[in-house]
Amino acid sequence: MNEVKLGRQNLLGTNVATQIAVVVRDIDKAIDAYSELLGVPKPNVIITDPDAGRDVYRGKSTRAQAKLAFFELGQVSLELIEPVGTDSVWYEVLAEKGEGVHHIAFNIQGTGEVTASLADHGMPVIQQGHYTGGMYTYVDSEAKLGVMLELLENFDAGE
Amino acid sequence: MNEVKLGRQNLLGTNVATQIAVVVRDIDKAIDAYSELLGVPKPNVIITDPDAGRDVYRGKSTRAQAKLAFFELGQVSLELIEPVGTDSVWYEVLAEKGEGVHHIAFNIQGTGEVTASLADHGMPVIQQGHYTGGMYTYVDSEAKLGVMLELLENFDAGE
Repeated sequence: MNEVKLGRQNLLGTNVATQIAVVVRDIDKAIDAYSELLGVPKPNVIITDPDAGRDVYRGKSTRAQAKLAFFELGQVSLELIEPVGTDSVWYEVLAEKGEGVHHIAFNIQGTGEVTASLADHGMPVIQQGHYTGGMYTYVDSEAKLGVMLELLENFDAGE
Repeated sequence: MNEVKLGRQNLLGTNVATQIAVVVRDIDKAIDAYSELLGVPKPNVIITDPDAGRDVYRGKSTRAQAKLAFFELGQVSLELIEPVGTDSVWYEVLAEKGEGVHHIAFNIQGTGEVTASLADHGMPVIQQGHYTGGMYTYVDSEAKLGVMLELLENFDAGE
């Protein structure tokens, strides 16, 4: 216990979680509930852009979308996700497991290297795409970690 | 959108999430995976004390236990939970939904008032108990929020 192994490498390059995401069937209803819980105004709903995204889901290009909304919970944000269309990890999780936590996200740098390292450790990419100023990657980590990870890389940061 | 309603009350008294918990079948295996992911030493496993806890699960006293381990992810900690025994919300979630995120926790003050307020908003208590220096409460918030909440009250803090 508490065995210290110097030189062990963090596979993500960070240990700071930045986001918890919950997939829901009705984002407007969920926004109402979280706004009431936290006593904050309702955030705007964002709809992902299938043209900007160049999203790839399980090896194939997809035009599936999601409605998104964000609440701040301190260091971490809470992301609500309502899938639009079916060819996405958002829809897959909702269909298979129902409403619940979809992923925990970390802001990383070097998506290519991090995803290669995670794949070497049994956590391959499920879905990947772009948003304005950055890209996201979901990796299949549920069997090992009990939860899916999202990697967020903002290209403006630190360059 | 972004309608500001002054005077709305935060039902928790805080918007700072402090913990994400994942329920697993084999905590030692999960500890190995997270230690490898984050490049950190393996944390000790804590076993909850059924005598100290005075735990109440769905209205009845229970002696069910859980093995716990914690990793730091910045502001939030990641809690791993392996149920021991069956009369607990830990076992209930694992049996019904499999491995996955069990709850998001907030450190609150005034458990009685907060739980009464949450119950008024359709989120009643599922399980409650004590640990050294404080108490925990799980509320049935999945239907409204898509995730269970845990309230942690440390009696030493702020008094």
